[in-house]
Amino acid sequence: MVRVGIVNVTGYAGAETARLLARHPDVRLVATTGRSAAGQSLGDVFPHLADLDLSIQDELPDVDVAFSALPHHASAETIPQLVERGQRVVDISADYRLHDAALYERWYGAHPSPDLLAEAPYGLPELHATRIANARLVANPGCYPTAAILALAPVADLVEPQVIVDAKSGVSGAGRSLNLTTHFCEINENCHAYGLSGHRHLPEMEQELGALRAARRGDGAPLEVTFVPHLLPMTRGILATCYARLENGWSQAGLSAHYRDYYRAAPFVRVVDAPPQTKHTLGTNLCLIHPRLDEQTGRLVVVSCIDNLVKGAAGQAVQNMNLMLGLPEVVGLEAPALYP
Amino acid sequence: MVRVGIVNVTGYAGAETARLLARHPDVRLVATTGRSAAGQSLGDVFPHLADLDLSIQDELPDVDVAFSALPHHASAETIPQLVERGQRVVDISADYRLHDAALYERWYGAHPSPDLLAEAPYGLPELHATRIANARLVANPGCYPTAAILALAPVADLVEPQVIVDAKSGVSGAGRSLNLTTHFCEINENCHAYGLSGHRHLPEMEQELGALRAARRGDGAPLEVTFVPHLLPMTRGILATCYARLENGWSQAGLSAHYRDYYRAAPFVRVVDAPPQTKHTLGTNLCLIHPRLDEQTGRLVVVSCIDNLVKGAAGQAVQNMNLMLGLPEVVGLEAPALYP
Amino acid sequence: MVRVGIVNVTGYAGAETARLLARHPDVRLVATTGRSAAGQSLGDVFPHLADLDLSIQDELPDVDVAFSALPHHASAETIPQLVERGQRVVDISADYRLHDAALYERWYGAHPSPDLLAEAPYGLPELHATRIANARLVANPGCYPTAAILALAPVADLVEPQVIVDAKSGVSGAGRSLNLTTHFCEINENCHAYGLSGHRHLPEMEQELGALRAARRGDGAPLEVTFVPHLLPMTRGILATCYARLENGWSQAGLSAHYRDYYRAAPFVRVVDAPPQTKHTLGTNLCLIHPRLDEQTGRLVVVSCIDNLVKGAAGQAVQNMNLMLGLPEVVGLEAPALYP
Amino acid sequence: MVRVGIVNVTGYAGAETARLLARHPDVRLVATTGRSAAGQSLGDVFPHLADLDLSIQDELPDVDVAFSALPHHASAETIPQLVERGQRVVDISADYRLHDAALYERWYGAHPSPDLLAEAPYGLPELHATRIANARLVANPGCYPTAAILALAPVADLVEPQVIVDAKSGVSGAGRSLNLTTHFCEINENCHAYGLSGHRHLPEMEQELGALRAARRGDGAPLEVTFVPHLLPMTRGILATCYARLENGWSQAGLSAHYRDYYRAAPFVRVVDAPPQTKHTLGTNLCLIHPRLDEQTGRLVVVSCIDNLVKGAAGQAVQNMNLMLGLPEVVGLEAPALYP
Repeated sequence: MVRVGIVNVTGYAGAETARLLARHPDVRLVATTGRSAAGQSLGDVFPHLADLDLSIQDELPDVDVAFSALPHHASAETIPQLVERGQRVVDISADYRLHDAALYERWYGAHPSPDLLAEAPYGLPELHATRIANARLVANPGCYPTAAILALAPVADLVEPQVIVDAKSGVSGAGRSLNLTTHFCEINENCHAYGLSGHRHLPEMEQELGALRAARRGDGAPLEVTFVPHLLPMTRGILATCYARLENGWSQAGLSAHYRDYYRAAPFVRVVDAPPQTKHTLGTNLCLIHPRLDEQTGRLVVVSCIDNLVKGAAGQAVQNMNLMLGLPEVVGLEAPALYP
Repeated sequence: MVRVGIVNVTGYAGAETARLLARHPDVRLVATTGRSAAGQSLGDVFPHLADLDLSIQDELPDVDVAFSALPHHASAETIPQLVERGQRVVDISADYRLHDAALYERWYGAHPSPDLLAEAPYGLPELHATRIANARLVANPGCYPTAAILALAPVADLVEPQVIVDAKSGVSGAGRSLNLTTHFCEINENCHAYGLSGHRHLPEMEQELGALRAARRGDGAPLEVTFVPHLLPMTRGILATCYARLENGWSQAGLSAHYRDYYRAAPFVRVVDAPPQTKHTLGTNLCLIHPRLDEQTGRLVVVSCIDNLVKGAAGQAVQNMNLMLGLPEVVGLEAPALYP
Repeated sequence: MVRVGIVNVTGYAGAETARLLARHPDVRLVATTGRSAAGQSLGDVFPHLADLDLSIQDELPDVDVAFSALPHHASAETIPQLVERGQRVVDISADYRLHDAALYERWYGAHPSPDLLAEAPYGLPELHATRIANARLVANPGCYPTAAILALAPVADLVEPQVIVDAKSGVSGAGRSLNLTTHFCEINENCHAYGLSGHRHLPEMEQELGALRAARRGDGAPLEVTFVPHLLPMTRGILATCYARLENGWSQAGLSAHYRDYYRAAPFVRVVDAPPQTKHTLGTNLCLIHPRLDEQTGRLVVVSCIDNLVKGAAGQAVQNMNLMLGLPEVVGLEAPALYP
Repeated sequence: MVRVGIVNVTGYAGAETARLLARHPDVRLVATTGRSAAGQSLGDVFPHLADLDLSIQDELPDVDVAFSALPHHASAETIPQLVERGQRVVDISADYRLHDAALYERWYGAHPSPDLLAEAPYGLPELHATRIANARLVANPGCYPTAAILALAPVADLVEPQVIVDAKSGVSGAGRSLNLTTHFCEINENCHAYGLSGHRHLPEMEQELGALRAARRGDGAPLEVTFVPHLLPMTRGILATCYARLENGWSQAGLSAHYRDYYRAAPFVRVVDAPPQTKHTLGTNLCLIHPRLDEQTGRLVVVSCIDNLVKGAAGQAVQNMNLMLGLPEVVGLEAPALYP
């Protein structure tokens, strides 16, 4: 049995990783850490995980695969030691997602361990499965980029290079830390945009979609993303509504067929015929995608959705682990959504 | 005291009109109708309106101003009789919003009383106050168009003629009728796009923004709108995130000043410095607007929000009535939002 | 592989049964029926179940175990045929829960197949495991009775014979049918009691708690329940707050120990040290119970909670099936709650 | 124009007081204070109050009536100075609600200014209007006690002296301070009891109901309350379900008539014929009460509801102020509920 551990289990991404690992047949969660809660049992902090019968430790013992759910910076300060000790790591933080240390610095400040940037693949299995399978360290994507990149990847080289991602997120994406924005009374019966001066998930989208475009077209022209995230009064779910202009004429049928073909081997991506609902992904690793030509204007509209804590965080991390361990991608991730 | 009545009070727009009229100092709600509930007291159907001590009648008696909250088609079948009897009418339905009968037919079917189309101003007071003041019949705008047109009106002639309106609405916009979409269990903890094959509020936006553009530029070039509405798990509120490209260079400061100047005489429009929240409009007739240049791409993003049942329906109807009666626009509409 | 089927999969209880069976390792869901949706694929009606790749049929073929999720009366009209054909049945409806046909008639009208009443055990495994294991037909308990009976069973013979059950339920307990009560706009940001003139789940509570009391005390004195259900703005979850007076003096420690001892062999019942939260049961078959002596008054307060669609319906049905098939009770029901 | 001020406007009760005063025709809100936000404009902290055009000050200037929305202890440390300066005060905190300093100490710690306890009436106008009208200092009741006392006052002397109050509250009752309990993700789709070891609102209920009982019966026997509060996933609203046993036989008709008669002069109390819904009080000062004899058991069940921030806090404070100023009780408090 493969032994796995979670660094900083006390946030929502960490706890969700534990939930998914609890029912994984081929690995065993043997240890968790969490600074503020060290010494407590996992069940004290998260009653739904009481059956795992684990305590929260100060330091992670040696495991085969470690998940880091630390905040950015803290993750990049901790991971080099894990890698040096021979542990394979899935980093759920943002620290190794951007390949360019200068770009990282612009959005997050100076990088604590830039040497590892070059080797860490961007952990979106639908794009980088082979590199992930062989990596020591995988950079698990952000929640918004997962939804947006999967929505636009099939057409990254076929559209005019300015796209819009209007994304709507449940509150759990803001984490378990306390602030007024996530106080129930403030966000219940409410909705607003945020991050209008620039959200950290933007450069991930531009990096990945731009790389796809450049590779397929053989030129280096970037793809520019206007990204506006919104907070909604729900706990889980991201819906990304993406707007672009196709360079050539397409029919709706051709577009749907192109998307279906592109994702025919992706077990978690479903190209659907009606606007997808976040609730249909609740608790699952699915990404539902609906590409649509606007009949009035010919513009391309692609709507995608995920559970931000699963495909947008913990589930994708487990999917990456499966690839790293040579397991089928779907192991431990196959239960249907909780509905309604 | 001016005597007013509501035709079809039994939906959310009708009930909200009654709520607002209940506290209006210069008019008196003297009668309501509603086919399914005729004979009941208003308080039986809506306990929060019990103090009005009205019954729901079959037919509206003569009043000075009548509000029609009937569904489309039914409204245009009923209103001609009211107008002929000399009553002034605010139509909350969609029936007189589109000036072009052929366009109406394309979206709603044949118009029951097209002769009145020419005289009914589009009841957005920020654009058409003078015509509204003198009208017998005013076409109260749709909820989405109210948010979108107010967001884009100041720049209708300054942007490239393809704009995107990504709008998010609370569930009350779908009305009080029963369907699975609005079942609590289906939309709670859920979010989805709808109307991707064309939503009836689209032609209103194109009519009004196109007319503004044509008038200011002296040409007839239309303005094309890509409109994607979304349903959110909240009762009230619309947030419209609008995307456009300004034709000339603008600074953020210049943009904000332009918006403030444009709306300096509009008592219900507030140009705000942070992304507005729907909750800040709850129960009020306000429209909050935040114009923003995307620093990354130079694209214009305008976020606006309203309470869909007030500025998006009943409040705007009362505002129109105030204009028609020569009252200050704000009478009866000044209470602060319910927050939190 | 055991073959199972669901009669009337199109409600929430039916769909939830399908969700749970989808991940059960020892049985295979081979058929579903549903009158209104017959001929459609299951994935058309419930996208989250698309992977099951089943169609909704008119009639159930022969299976080893059938779940009936029909409404009451319809269930008792259908089940006799299934039983005669040799199928074992778990009835999720109310039809066989009350052993007394006259009592059934008082609450539901005349019973369509009273002959089967005598043989159908009340399917609460914590009380009747042996009878369930040997039954052809099991009457799956109501959601409220499950929470209330498990809360009070340990003290059914130790309290004064008048107890109060103040229960709070999520909206899914009201089913997937449409009515104004479950319209999002009506129940969102709202809470109210209902059923004050008598709720059909009351006689189940009195039957089971009364039987426990009578058996242990050797007398036939009934136990009288005042039951007030409330509807809350959430999709899933029941919280039952039960009030009683213990006849003899108890300490908090003794009370907790008594409860723990009573449920020591019940894999899904957890006696917890803090007031339990419905969210900690989301998607699971757990019942969390917190017995508490009110320090001020000496009164016993027992708070219990379940997911009304799992332990309150589909999960308990699968638990019953496991017992009927000689499988461990927990098979297919062990995943942690979805949290947050 | 009467000049009023709010001490500590920055919590929900303070802000709600400002909202109500903003539309009060006979008083003018001239000043607000708030330690953490001193120096900011009120509109910066609460955009919905921007039109009041007030700044948040360090100290309250002289006003005719001051509202204290400070936390307990802090309020009793501040109010003596206000009273000495000749200002009349409505204290929204708990500090002067309990007449017995020893009882206060047991629940809140030593009282900072016990000398004022004797003169401050318990500010429930339906019980103490005359004393309130003449008071320098009024102790505004807690939210739970308001709902429970109004529900049981008509029968305080007619029931067996052990009653149960099972109360359900929206999250705003927990205030605007940050803690994990009120994080959106924790309480959304959740419900739980709390305060099982004793909630501070309990002694208020016992004081007021006991005093009513003793006065009417001429004996000093206390009335004992078992009080269990619950937190629900909604922002506003309290529903109290109260259980008692009437000593003598009553009919439903007689009971309803008794309640109606008891409250015939109370403008904000409505005795209703169906279980009341919290939403029907949203934003209003109403208390809806439904007394009901349980047909099965003869037990009395009384369900009452209020908006916890209005009748449960700010609205009742304004009602008290109206009495103190010799104004009609309802001035400024008459707008219908926001529904849906």
